[in-house]
Amino acid sequence: MPAYPKSARPGLIIGSVAIDRVVTPFAQSDNLLGGAASYAAIAASYFAPTRLVGVVGGDFPKSFWKRFRKHGIDLAGLQVDPEGKTFFWSGQYHENFAGRDTLEVRLNVFEKFSPVLSASLLDSPFVMLGAIMPTLQNQVVDQFAAAKKQPFILADTFDLWIHTMRADLERLLRRLDLFVINEEEALLLTDERNLVLAGQRLRQMGSHSVVIKKGGHGSLLFHRDGYFAIPAYPVTKIVDPTGAGDSYAGALIGYLASVNRTDFAALKKAVAYATAVSSLTVESFSVNRLSTAGRKTINARLQDLVRLSRF
Amino acid sequence: MPAYPKSARPGLIIGSVAIDRVVTPFAQSDNLLGGAASYAAIAASYFAPTRLVGVVGGDFPKSFWKRFRKHGIDLAGLQVDPEGKTFFWSGQYHENFAGRDTLEVRLNVFEKFSPVLSASLLDSPFVMLGAIMPTLQNQVVDQFAAAKKQPFILADTFDLWIHTMRADLERLLRRLDLFVINEEEALLLTDERNLVLAGQRLRQMGSHSVVIKKGGHGSLLFHRDGYFAIPAYPVTKIVDPTGAGDSYAGALIGYLASVNRTDFAALKKAVAYATAVSSLTVESFSVNRLSTAGRKTINARLQDLVRLSRF
Repeated sequence: MPAYPKSARPGLIIGSVAIDRVVTPFAQSDNLLGGAASYAAIAASYFAPTRLVGVVGGDFPKSFWKRFRKHGIDLAGLQVDPEGKTFFWSGQYHENFAGRDTLEVRLNVFEKFSPVLSASLLDSPFVMLGAIMPTLQNQVVDQFAAAKKQPFILADTFDLWIHTMRADLERLLRRLDLFVINEEEALLLTDERNLVLAGQRLRQMGSHSVVIKKGGHGSLLFHRDGYFAIPAYPVTKIVDPTGAGDSYAGALIGYLASVNRTDFAALKKAVAYATAVSSLTVESFSVNRLSTAGRKTINARLQDLVRLSRF
Repeated sequence: MPAYPKSARPGLIIGSVAIDRVVTPFAQSDNLLGGAASYAAIAASYFAPTRLVGVVGGDFPKSFWKRFRKHGIDLAGLQVDPEGKTFFWSGQYHENFAGRDTLEVRLNVFEKFSPVLSASLLDSPFVMLGAIMPTLQNQVVDQFAAAKKQPFILADTFDLWIHTMRADLERLLRRLDLFVINEEEALLLTDERNLVLAGQRLRQMGSHSVVIKKGGHGSLLFHRDGYFAIPAYPVTKIVDPTGAGDSYAGALIGYLASVNRTDFAALKKAVAYATAVSSLTVESFSVNRLSTAGRKTINARLQDLVRLSRF
């Protein structure tokens, strides 16, 4: 378990924990630890004490529990339904990783997932809501409001919710400190054709700050105090992009929790750490590279990012 | 005419000078000053004394001559064929500026363009070869070699030459200090699927340094001493992207000529200035915004780029 700085406060990650099967143009792999919350929690754990809220079935492998524990992740909020099976996802990436198809989804125990946070979990000052249904995301925010807590809340989403639950998503947006969304989804949700306008529009829709992720082209941060853009880390060998965005968001909330700050300067550095961390995720299947890389490698990539972007 | 720093050396721009007709999703405009060398020379003229080599017909409007002269551009190398007509290009941009179709090309006097450089033009220490035929680009390099001159040479290309004159282009690459190419062309020429690998490959193919332009996603610089990436300037209103890449390359060679340096640090700053300058080009038809913006606006955008990329 890593030693965290004195400033570090706990980060709470809420989302899916899954068993994945992934097919890429070069290889395939089964029985992988997957799910947004898995990637995000491991990423966040490099920076701050991390609490994971999700649900798994009785089939969830011991090695996956061990993996989370290795990272010192607090699993009190990880519900187990011993009679049920863990959420299963299978996907296949297209040539050159340009898009992917979902081959199979078995929601299993995740179908009835409805996070109810204990008093101690509600005492988390930094929260990431993975891309679960916006109604559930709002229910989590409701619980913080009812407990008179005002954590810093980051949320992710995905295109299905933009198509099917737009009103709930728009309500969520008005309650967020930071909305993290990818390029295509940002354009879809705002009906803009320009990413700078899309980012500005998402702030107008209510999120205090917005990050637009552009994959291999880096990411953009929109904040009251300014605009920030960072290139991608120069990855030359992509093995499996699954979880890149989730580990990005996890590192982001983890870094903010570690410094216990949410100002523009802290957000810029968080985005840089997120860029470094997500570059590791794509270099292996599942969380393998992310989990074994270590903080030293992350720091080295951050320094690389400083160097490659300064002039 | 601008005042140049004491370090400034002359830059030579060789390429097309044209009369354009451009149709965008929002507007169209006729009788525009166009051609790679026009954009590049005006961009370069903000930084260093600039010489233009090209050819026009007797129909080349007085207002265009005046425009070049306003920028102090040395037009001794701009041949006039009084009996001929100027190169005419007409293009139409797709929805959201995602690609364009060439509607009409009349090469006119440009068809027989074959630059022969005078002794004084051969005395230019910084040279940009616009995307003319690689055979012509090589003929220019031959003239410098025959005169025992070793200027810093930047070249651009375009996909037609990759498809039709690959061997000549590959010969050119081995003779270049800096090759500037866009994303799609870099992948096409190297047969890579990853831009970092493509940039590395282009250096292996012989160009000392390489810049890959990614439009709205910024650009990448590959140099012996390292890798540099810069985001795009956040343009929110694109009027006409024509000439963006040409003014980018022109600003690049102009900045290097202005500081009379070609090391990695100078190249990074040149790429940043090129990013700032090309962001102006897209904000109007033709060279209008580029030509009227002024050095103060360029410097302000450079400072914006410093701010938006630092963390």
